[in-house]
Amino acid sequence: MKFGPIRPVGVNFAAADLSGYSEPMTSILIVGAGAIGALFGSALARQGAQVSVVCRSDYDIVSREGYDITSPLLGNHRFYPHAVFKDVAECKTPPDFLILTTKVLEGVDRTALIRPAVGPNTVIVLIQNGVDIEAEIASAFPENEILSGLAIIGVGRSAPGMVNHQTMGSLNLGRYPSGNSPAGERLAALLNGAGIGCKLTDNVVSARWAKAVWNATFNPISITGGMLDTAVILGTPESTAFVRRAMDEVCAVAAAAGHPVHPKVVEQFIGSTKTMPAYHTSMALDYKYGRPMEVEAILGNTVRAARNLGVSTPILETLYALTKMIERKMRESR
Amino acid sequence: MKFGPIRPVGVNFAAADLSGYSEPMTSILIVGAGAIGALFGSALARQGAQVSVVCRSDYDIVSREGYDITSPLLGNHRFYPHAVFKDVAECKTPPDFLILTTKVLEGVDRTALIRPAVGPNTVIVLIQNGVDIEAEIASAFPENEILSGLAIIGVGRSAPGMVNHQTMGSLNLGRYPSGNSPAGERLAALLNGAGIGCKLTDNVVSARWAKAVWNATFNPISITGGMLDTAVILGTPESTAFVRRAMDEVCAVAAAAGHPVHPKVVEQFIGSTKTMPAYHTSMALDYKYGRPMEVEAILGNTVRAARNLGVSTPILETLYALTKMIERKMRESR
Repeated sequence: MKFGPIRPVGVNFAAADLSGYSEPMTSILIVGAGAIGALFGSALARQGAQVSVVCRSDYDIVSREGYDITSPLLGNHRFYPHAVFKDVAECKTPPDFLILTTKVLEGVDRTALIRPAVGPNTVIVLIQNGVDIEAEIASAFPENEILSGLAIIGVGRSAPGMVNHQTMGSLNLGRYPSGNSPAGERLAALLNGAGIGCKLTDNVVSARWAKAVWNATFNPISITGGMLDTAVILGTPESTAFVRRAMDEVCAVAAAAGHPVHPKVVEQFIGSTKTMPAYHTSMALDYKYGRPMEVEAILGNTVRAARNLGVSTPILETLYALTKMIERKMRESR
Repeated sequence: MKFGPIRPVGVNFAAADLSGYSEPMTSILIVGAGAIGALFGSALARQGAQVSVVCRSDYDIVSREGYDITSPLLGNHRFYPHAVFKDVAECKTPPDFLILTTKVLEGVDRTALIRPAVGPNTVIVLIQNGVDIEAEIASAFPENEILSGLAIIGVGRSAPGMVNHQTMGSLNLGRYPSGNSPAGERLAALLNGAGIGCKLTDNVVSARWAKAVWNATFNPISITGGMLDTAVILGTPESTAFVRRAMDEVCAVAAAAGHPVHPKVVEQFIGSTKTMPAYHTSMALDYKYGRPMEVEAILGNTVRAARNLGVSTPILETLYALTKMIERKMRESR
């Protein structure tokens, strides 16, 4: 459905009044608009973009009432997208940016999901977890520019249509496979304008590998034994040494893949995780609530890269085997 | 406390009446008489042994009412030990056999536990899980004969003083460090007489290593992800291949320790586990009920043996690190 007069595009019109000229409005389609998509969408809309969303599970309430967002950055407000679609195919005009914020899950064909809305000039933006998640999209849309983004932000869905933004966070954005582009700069400017720190990187694949050093270890470790928080995981010198060895394996894969991670990254991750209060990883929360976990994007792709590159990763292989068993148990109990 | 006339030693007296001569009654002290100790104790008492028990947690009810045992082998009956002690030190006469059936737990000093009741001629019998659990006892009691036993039997404690024997099971018994002895034959004869299949082995350490191939892998794997039953663990070709690799590591340690496991053991274990209905390991049940787990006896000793022998066991090391985290979490939540 479409919202009429209440769409928050005033800023743009005001700018137009002053200059006598306005750039054509940037159109953005957010596919899989859960918490992070809604928050970014609202931020982009404030900057004058025309933001529509594809939102399946919360469609009924969002199409009626928009998103109810509490945020220390954007304030507590309602975000009414330009249009709310239940299915990508309902979007008849290809957007300038198609931002995909779904989880990357085994058995979910992201290419098929977005294809109906991708036009020849649509920039595809992947704000998703994991390593090696772009190649599939890049080869399906060889003519389209791909931006790849790593979000670190504390935002969750507290109820249907309700988004709770807790920690400010940031977005690391770059062109895939490398470099940057005017489109990236345009999107970054919009986000930065709204106060969401967006840093451009010209080597986003390396950035993904660096993030995997934490993600591909803490996430699977955190779901063994029910749920283990970071304080338990780093609770003893022995357990910390184990985490370090697991992280070293990810570093070895990254290096073999041509994206060496800075040698201090392991200690920095361990140090910063130790300093923070005990918390649960995203995978642990998915596990707790019986939601699908991003095992393949976060860990499976790392393990497969290792196998392809001939890097020995027995710890990661073990974590992967255990995680797949856990996933299977979860699926069977659903 | 002591039970008077109701102690079930009639068989022995009857034998004495017929022959005109009776061997001195075999005295047995069972230390840590939970389900398995009570069942074996009752079986031994039926064969004419004088069986006393040390039983701390269920002392009150057992000292008043004995054990309430349901068993397809021994029938549903009450077992009144010759004496019920709350503490080993209360046993003033060293027994012929001191049978230790406690769990082997980190921080529990088994030597100190049994010392008050060990006389110069007492045979110490360890019916306990794990590998490499005898050396500590052997070096503390260098003059005493040590028998080491591996029980495979389905028996549990359903309530204080209540023992539920479900599957028949067997006991593999041998002298430590190797060989056999008249004492072992005597104990085996008593157990076999009561219908508990006791097989003598002259290489009990090798038997422990063979059992560890299953125990040191399925147990820790089963407590990752909450609880995983055997069907989930062997649910896919990939997960089965992983279990096989983990078992191969145990085999490598066993071989380096001088106790090579028959090459078919891995496939036999996997095959038999697959054939049985899905079930939970003992460690998984301990995990479920928040009870201490035998991590060190079952897995820690295997990993330490590997380290000492220079055998690389990355899968077991990973399982060990994860299991220690889980154990720590359990301890903190108690």
